[in-house]
Amino acid sequence: MKSPQNSPSALLELIDALKCLPGVGPRSAQRMAYHLLQRDQTGARRLAFSLNLALDTLVRCSLCNNYSEHEVCSLCRDDERDRSKLCVVEMPADLLMMEQARCHQGLYYVLQGRLSPLDGIGPKDIALEQLLKRAQDGVVEEVILATNYTAEGEATAYYIAEMLKRQQIGVTRIARGLPVGGELEHVDSGTLAQAVYERKPV
Amino acid sequence: MKSPQNSPSALLELIDALKCLPGVGPRSAQRMAYHLLQRDQTGARRLAFSLNLALDTLVRCSLCNNYSEHEVCSLCRDDERDRSKLCVVEMPADLLMMEQARCHQGLYYVLQGRLSPLDGIGPKDIALEQLLKRAQDGVVEEVILATNYTAEGEATAYYIAEMLKRQQIGVTRIARGLPVGGELEHVDSGTLAQAVYERKPV
Ligand SMILES: [Zn+2]
Ligand SMILES: [Zn+2]
Repeated sequence: MKSPQNSPSALLELIDALKCLPGVGPRSAQRMAYHLLQRDQTGARRLAFSLNLALDTLVRCSLCNNYSEHEVCSLCRDDERDRSKLCVVEMPADLLMMEQARCHQGLYYVLQGRLSPLDGIGPKDIALEQLLKRAQDGVVEEVILATNYTAEGEATAYYIAEMLKRQQIGVTRIARGLPVGGELEHVDSGTLAQAVYERKPV
Repeated sequence: MKSPQNSPSALLELIDALKCLPGVGPRSAQRMAYHLLQRDQTGARRLAFSLNLALDTLVRCSLCNNYSEHEVCSLCRDDERDRSKLCVVEMPADLLMMEQARCHQGLYYVLQGRLSPLDGIGPKDIALEQLLKRAQDGVVEEVILATNYTAEGEATAYYIAEMLKRQQIGVTRIARGLPVGGELEHVDSGTLAQAVYERKPV
């Protein structure tokens, strides 16, 4: 798989750049580069454009910490949502799953991560300070913890619950209707909805 | 996995654009997009730059049909190569494997494909006319067919051999030292070198 000196540098550079994608090693990167050059130059040009566009226009919503093209995202601006309920999820994909399950009419807070001491991710590495401030806006009455039921997701929920309860903020946890070790992303809507309906105080 | 209306369009567009990569479905594309935005914005920017650079600067070498930044690539310009021997391979990756095996001091011709009637790829879809012309430069004495020993690679070799023999051009085929059904890309250098040394007239 080593590329000799005489490969054009723009090709070697592209192969190397593709390796920044998760799950893409040297061999996949090479296959992707040749595929794009030979069979999908339009797709390649579009990918370059989309990468730059996303980097240039996406910011974190100041209310929910999700990706947004505006300072406050459209979901947080939606007047029909129940602003007294704030659902905390780990990742944007989890928010999408919650929306598909149609079991939560409130707003969200996206941690963009989870506590993971083994990976060196502590309370200061995810946006917990910002969540504490967000939950104290005087409108939020219940924070619903919808982190995964993995060891890390549970530790994160526990930490947040302790943090919020010290400030007399009501906290609930979605029910363990999810399979143990399960992740929101991989669960069906019905199971997820059930877990929300059966949430209990912590 | 359906994304709701309220996801920012630049994010949806990036996820969609990533699906042009071979082997990347909706779920991988979403994972890749979040990874780039959260953890590797530098990598994302570099990938966009490399895609544009490759598209803007890479052309096919007019002698060997491989990717090159010049009209004639550095390998074809190398004075130390034996210009009387022309090795035909299917893909650029096969050329790299040949170079690693250090068993061929001549030049190359890269088909950028193979005959594949089932996929509708006939003689006119790979650069066979150009190969015929290339082999008739008056310097080439032997065309070494190093297409894969797959059904398609063998059909391609057979077709090229017939085409060249009609023009009284000497043609050899690398020995079937490769495992039957094997592809150059997945074979060790020693086996490949042996196959080249044992090439025989066809
Ligand atoms: Zn928001
Ligand atoms: Zn060349």
